[in-house]
Amino acid sequence: MKSHQKIILVNGEQSSSIDVNDRGLQFGDGVFETIRVHQGRPVWWQQHMDRLLEGCRRLRFTHLPDDEVLRAEANELSAGCLTGALKIIVTRGASSSGYAAPADIMPNRVLQLSSGTRHQSKSGQGIMLGVSEQRITGSQQLSGIKHLNRLEQVLARMQCQAEGWGECIMLDIEDKVVEGSMSNLFIWQQDRLLTPLLGQTGIRGICRERIMSVAAAQGIDVQQCQLGLDDLQKSDGLFVCNSLIGIWPVVKYAGRTFDAGANTRLLQAQLEAEICSAE
Amino acid sequence: MKSHQKIILVNGEQSSSIDVNDRGLQFGDGVFETIRVHQGRPVWWQQHMDRLLEGCRRLRFTHLPDDEVLRAEANELSAGCLTGALKIIVTRGASSSGYAAPADIMPNRVLQLSSGTRHQSKSGQGIMLGVSEQRITGSQQLSGIKHLNRLEQVLARMQCQAEGWGECIMLDIEDKVVEGSMSNLFIWQQDRLLTPLLGQTGIRGICRERIMSVAAAQGIDVQQCQLGLDDLQKSDGLFVCNSLIGIWPVVKYAGRTFDAGANTRLLQAQLEAEICSAE
Repeated sequence: MKSHQKIILVNGEQSSSIDVNDRGLQFGDGVFETIRVHQGRPVWWQQHMDRLLEGCRRLRFTHLPDDEVLRAEANELSAGCLTGALKIIVTRGASSSGYAAPADIMPNRVLQLSSGTRHQSKSGQGIMLGVSEQRITGSQQLSGIKHLNRLEQVLARMQCQAEGWGECIMLDIEDKVVEGSMSNLFIWQQDRLLTPLLGQTGIRGICRERIMSVAAAQGIDVQQCQLGLDDLQKSDGLFVCNSLIGIWPVVKYAGRTFDAGANTRLLQAQLEAEICSAE
Repeated sequence: MKSHQKIILVNGEQSSSIDVNDRGLQFGDGVFETIRVHQGRPVWWQQHMDRLLEGCRRLRFTHLPDDEVLRAEANELSAGCLTGALKIIVTRGASSSGYAAPADIMPNRVLQLSSGTRHQSKSGQGIMLGVSEQRITGSQQLSGIKHLNRLEQVLARMQCQAEGWGECIMLDIEDKVVEGSMSNLFIWQQDRLLTPLLGQTGIRGICRERIMSVAAAQGIDVQQCQLGLDDLQKSDGLFVCNSLIGIWPVVKYAGRTFDAGANTRLLQAQLEAEICSAE
């Protein structure tokens, strides 16, 4: 996403700043969603909201954000935006000191709309994929929550930049493939589509879910299973995905070159069709 | 610390807000220190600065904060404060979107002084200690950095609140004792003082270092070693420490009651003496 324009709402008001006592800054105590905006509306809204609210519940927020307010603000920002990205951050709120939060704390919300063009070239030409030195860790209590503690992803992304990779694979501490630094991963074994089973770690991407559904509708056999780097190396093709980028085919990985292949192109087309028509 | 008054400097200006694009909010991409202020000056300043700058280096900040500027601002805030807490947050800076940071990004700094009275009662009467359900995880790359990804501590602290504990022990995924939610831990085995060896996880507290030094100067045998919950249960006494609280003796743990004991009281007195005289 090349950003052309950014509009920000903080608790419903146009603003570009937040209280330094906000626990998002102090501790990463919050959750976020990054949502594609297409033709003036946020795509897969309900799925994003469900995950965001589930994250707030699992972090035991005393008060949940009002999803109707979030929807109204998201629609207000997205109106008139042909294509863009909407990032929503919800934090537990502001508190004066220490890890403990007062019982009456109210969540803060930040909505940021960046309108602009998408990385169409990477969807078309594909990317080089590397393997991050940075592992995905995280405990059962925090697993799968799209929370604001994202230093592992930041360090992984810095390695992508340094190495010239479009994306990198992140492993858990048992050497299992989890996901990309900002995406989920799929691999082809002939005509079968596999994606890492996300247990203790990793985020169940909305786009990942939609791809599994779209693929199944096309009669493609899709399975979630444990994958290691050797499975990737032996695969017949790979791609990464997220809500903003859609599908990026991998054209170079571990010394091998791949082409996107008809099946990946089919999924790209089906996914874009769903985005254009989705509520 | 009961906060009576709070003064905040953001990049040197009195302010209570920060850019929503700051990566501290977006990703927890920064480090912090919490420093005791005594008689108008930040205690153990150099040790705190060394750790903060080491954290910035390990997170591969392109630019480090200027420690002379930090010192000047810290002194300015602390002047006239009899007793208080100074929190310093340094983030990688603000960036427009995504985990990757631009090469020319400049760090942001937030200094918050809370003047007020300390929890003297807990130093005197001691606390009840529990064991957190929340594990300490974290990869080699992030180990020991006092970074802003603190959700594990937030969840642990919430459990302390719910259970009425003054502090709780946090274990790593191999059941080894690491530290408290906001403190380091020491236990007595007769006259020997033990503290968890911090390898892959845990923060080497400044106060922990000072206690090891003060104890050694008193002729006490101090060792860092791997500890399990059974070692705590069999111990002859326990205490937790951090730069703000000093030493809190544990008077109740795992169904047993303890008294603070002469050795712990001696260390408390020696530590306070050092704080009163330290540069």
